[in-house]
Amino acid sequence: MGNQAVTFEEKKHVKLELHCHVGRAMHIFKGRWTFPIIKTLMDGTFRFKELERALHGINTRMLVKELKELEAEGIINRQAYATVPPTVEYSLTDKGKAMEPIIAEIEKWGVKYLQ
Amino acid sequence: MGNQAVTFEEKKHVKLELHCHVGRAMHIFKGRWTFPIIKTLMDGTFRFKELERALHGINTRMLVKELKELEAEGIINRQAYATVPPTVEYSLTDKGKAMEPIIAEIEKWGVKYLQ
Repeated sequence: MGNQAVTFEEKKHVKLELHCHVGRAMHIFKGRWTFPIIKTLMDGTFRFKELERALHGINTRMLVKELKELEAEGIINRQAYATVPPTVEYSLTDKGKAMEPIIAEIEKWGVKYLQ
Repeated sequence: MGNQAVTFEEKKHVKLELHCHVGRAMHIFKGRWTFPIIKTLMDGTFRFKELERALHGINTRMLVKELKELEAEGIINRQAYATVPPTVEYSLTDKGKAMEPIIAEIEKWGVKYLQ
């Protein structure tokens, strides 16, 4: 039966709260475009149109939705300027910038396993 | 207007293929339960019922679907044994085990920012 299955009791030590963090984090990161948007914003402040151009294949409606969710989660800042026409700039909060290691690991994995 | 926005030309250097890897990887990881399942399997080989018990809140149909997708992506092994009743065991492939650093970084981020 292959290597002796670890008994269920031993597996129980799999701490639930770490599960919750991974599960809850994935609830935030679930969007197909969440990580690519955050990765793009790692390079600085972007305006909406600049983000849209940098994210090939995203449509305006999706970008609006993702940016709203990321702002609500405290991962990005939205700064509006009363210029004519009005200008809006997006940048990462500290909480957003702290995701850099996650994205770096995903990239490493992707380069190795998604040829 | 805040710090001088990096010109769009400078932002262009954001390499597309890295985007693709992050985006394509997220296409695989999009499931709400994908990372918690992979994290659980980091502890060894599990049978279906053991996985179901370890993943609080998941329903059978969702677990069946996620395991099928992860097997199709080459992230988990599914080993069936002709016992009576038949037994099926799940474990991570090397490609799956290589995701450990991603999950570790998500946990670190979650512990810090998802209190």
